Amino acid sequence: MYRDRIRLPSLSSKVMSAADAAALIQDGMTVGMSGFTRAGEAKAVPHALAERARQEPLKITLMTGASLGNDLDKQLTEAGVLSRRMPFQVDNTLRKAINAGQVMFIDQHLSETVEQLRNKQLKLPDLAVIEAVAITEQGHIVPTTSVGNSASFAIFAKQVIIEINLAHNPNLEGLHDIYIPSYRPTRTPIPLVKADDRIGSTAIPIDPAKIVAIVITEQPDSPSTVTPPDSETQAIADHLIAFLKEEVADGRMTNRLGPLQAGIGNIANAVMCGLIDSPFEDLTMYSEVLQDSTFDLIDAGKLSFASGSSITLSDRRNSDVFGNLERYKEKLVLRPQEISNHPEVVRRLGIIGINTALEFDLYGNVNSTHVCGTRMMNGIGGSGDFARNAHLAIFVTKSIAKGGAISSVVPMVSHVDHTEHDVDILVTEIGLADLRGLAPRERARVIIDNCVHPMYRAALNDYFERACALGGHTPHILREALSWHINLDETGKMLAD
Amino acid sequence: MYRDRIRLPSLSSKVMSAADAAALIQDGMTVGMSGFTRAGEAKAVPHALAERARQEPLKITLMTGASLGNDLDKQLTEAGVLSRRMPFQVDNTLRKAINAGQVMFIDQHLSETVEQLRNKQLKLPDLAVIEAVAITEQGHIVPTTSVGNSASFAIFAKQVIIEINLAHNPNLEGLHDIYIPSYRPTRTPIPLVKADDRIGSTAIPIDPAKIVAIVITEQPDSPSTVTPPDSETQAIADHLIAFLKEEVADGRMTNRLGPLQAGIGNIANAVMCGLIDSPFEDLTMYSEVLQDSTFDLIDAGKLSFASGSSITLSDRRNSDVFGNLERYKEKLVLRPQEISNHPEVVRRLGIIGINTALEFDLYGNVNSTHVCGTRMMNGIGGSGDFARNAHLAIFVTKSIAKGGAISSVVPMVSHVDHTEHDVDILVTEIGLADLRGLAPRERARVIIDNCVHPMYRAALNDYFERACALGGHTPHILREALSWHINLDETGKMLAD
Repeated sequence: MYRDRIRLPSLSSKVMSAADAAALIQDGMTVGMSGFTRAGEAKAVPHALAERARQEPLKITLMTGASLGNDLDKQLTEAGVLSRRMPFQVDNTLRKAINAGQVMFIDQHLSETVEQLRNKQLKLPDLAVIEAVAITEQGHIVPTTSVGNSASFAIFAKQVIIEINLAHNPNLEGLHDIYIPSYRPTRTPIPLVKADDRIGSTAIPIDPAKIVAIVITEQPDSPSTVTPPDSETQAIADHLIAFLKEEVADGRMTNRLGPLQAGIGNIANAVMCGLIDSPFEDLTMYSEVLQDSTFDLIDAGKLSFASGSSITLSDRRNSDVFGNLERYKEKLVLRPQEISNHPEVVRRLGIIGINTALEFDLYGNVNSTHVCGTRMMNGIGGSGDFARNAHLAIFVTKSIAKGGAISSVVPMVSHVDHTEHDVDILVTEIGLADLRGLAPRERARVIIDNCVHPMYRAALNDYFERACALGGHTPHILREALSWHINLDETGKMLAD
Repeated sequence: MYRDRIRLPSLSSKVMSAADAAALIQDGMTVGMSGFTRAGEAKAVPHALAERARQEPLKITLMTGASLGNDLDKQLTEAGVLSRRMPFQVDNTLRKAINAGQVMFIDQHLSETVEQLRNKQLKLPDLAVIEAVAITEQGHIVPTTSVGNSASFAIFAKQVIIEINLAHNPNLEGLHDIYIPSYRPTRTPIPLVKADDRIGSTAIPIDPAKIVAIVITEQPDSPSTVTPPDSETQAIADHLIAFLKEEVADGRMTNRLGPLQAGIGNIANAVMCGLIDSPFEDLTMYSEVLQDSTFDLIDAGKLSFASGSSITLSDRRNSDVFGNLERYKEKLVLRPQEISNHPEVVRRLGIIGINTALEFDLYGNVNSTHVCGTRMMNGIGGSGDFARNAHLAIFVTKSIAKGGAISSVVPMVSHVDHTEHDVDILVTEIGLADLRGLAPRERARVIIDNCVHPMYRAALNDYFERACALGGHTPHILREALSWHINLDETGKMLAD
């Protein structure tokens, strides 16, 4: 039944079990696997690899596009397979191993991993494991629900293992647009000038002689865990939509806005859902991950086109979208993450980038990754690729966490992922701060007045006023700057009652 | 004698005194002036403006390319003219006013100011004051020793004042390449694929009807204050050149290296001077500012072409270069800073970016701007434009300052301008840390072993080991993380004897 999925007949002989394919991965290898935001990851081979590592010592460097589903990072961590991991993850078990210093995690801007590989600044993958819906007559790889770094991994690796996943709709073929920047010093501009431009091929072009194994699977992607908007995420969406209406009214953009990018997760999804009832029309997305809200917006007639690097859906949406792919296919494209996130394209298109902050400070510096400055949550992901060059770099978060024990607005962030230079707009359920063209002291005033939860407003105001009395372009009281995080670490709450 | 400098005859009637021209600037205006790294700034009109402001209340928002020479920021600050200032400065008097909260300073990535103007996210200049060597037959402006933001300021402003500066060699005409990105959503790629490509016009195209005043001046640019290499800057250069040789030996680049960018100042200048005696050949620069070392490298036959946004020379080099411009002209181009620093071009060309850090931390986060986290030195300048997308993002600094009272390597930087994601190589006179592909704990080890002054090595090692015992992807002891800066603020030294 999978013969129509392997259209180069000479490759049929490469079909083998996952265990046999996993046996090709040797201790000490660098392996590049497909997978981006729990979509389109290789499934059977890493699972078999974890099984094998329970019997014999086996350590690898694992590169992916972004996060894996199906508990694969958990299985690989528990089996002790991961010595190094890049460029992103979201798994609780792996996170603990990273924070314990057991797995060396290289947290990267998602557009940069393959650029560093191309320049031989990272060790090239010995082997790539790529999930596919099909192998073409030419032996080229048709990816599934994500492109991520799969194309460059397959091109750079000496050997390629393909997982043909029968659980995916074969009609995914044609959805992808594989474009790889040429080598320097003769690189030319990326010829993409609109979100719906197609500039590459529909399959990953490799020499089929590199394909050393083909494994047939039938395991679906993990569903996303996105939850419906709550009153706070709805308030964030409302503030942002009100702001965007003003931008249109002030003539800074049209009713089509700019191409939209939304980070993964509940808040960004809620913001995108909020656009369904907005006056904006003929919207486009130029984003990393296409979530439920993308398809809700298409169904509502609001979104004309969506470009991403992966599709990650909830159970609610999954069979509906992939079972009726022909309804959406002309309005979608999946690109390598190097292109979906490329600074050149982000700057050219004028993207509205909406990403989630873990915390931000009085001056608009954003921490996206580190709890109390030390413990990694997930990784910076693509947020920096977008925020630096976006037309509007927007960060969203609820103003408090853990029932108020934590304020998301702090005197000084405990870790910086996005500097104040790169942050235009901050939104909490309390309100929106427009920081454009403001000096730090002005930014602080706008943030305190608009974004801070009332529980913390007086304390932040007090800090800011005492800091200003000490002076400086960016006033701080160094002895107190991290005191809220120290309190949290030591007492479980940022401020005493 | 200046009739040949104003080649559109109808404009002759606009010639007036600097005081009369300055009278066109009204209280509350936003003014865009030429000037980048003390080169090519308008001189007579801002001086006259400061004079006038001593008689009557007058406040403006002043935008430039980058820093001004001839003590203009000092004069304007002392006269109380500046309410707002962007995007960069280096003046001691202005710095004090910024840190006292008297002048609102907006510290920006230098490629971004005109992008924000184009998108109406900053108030457009009411008036532009641009230094020129000539006005063409079409009424277009030929800049002098810098382009900076002059082209977009003149295009956006309702009124333009030109300072024709007779002190500049008229043969500067032809050196400039004025290219302005088109408006979104129909923007096309910047068609620059090599450092020596010319993609624009040699003069700034504006409607001559906007020219409301022409002032004739004869005041030279301020000389740069660059000093010859000392033993420490020479050691930094030596470490970096040894590293670049290894990169060539390892096949990661050729003997031509990549296009070089060097920040302003003594260390970067020393590094560039060090290339004179290196084995590298047929080098190119794609940088912001062309300093003495650029011309030393051309004279030595090492540098084939240099692209910048300004030329800033010492007294030693000034008359030699500008008096013999025909010797260099075919090897030079000056571009708008939006193009010299553009992320799209920086990423495409694969630039080797060398910039100066004020301090960096165990994990490779860099502070370029804020003393003890609060007091602005100069501004981030173009360092972020280059570091984020460079092929190699290199930061250099001496390992200690103030006779050892300050370590340039600290547990946690007191302010972040460049996150660890954007920093590849750190160099002090002690040695070089290659951070590529390393996790934070590995980065710390390499930095401590290679870059830290022996005076501080044991203390940093102790901090790092105790932090690791606490755990975390990026281990820190929050109670001590900023203690070195607190000590410095309170006692004048980071560590007690």
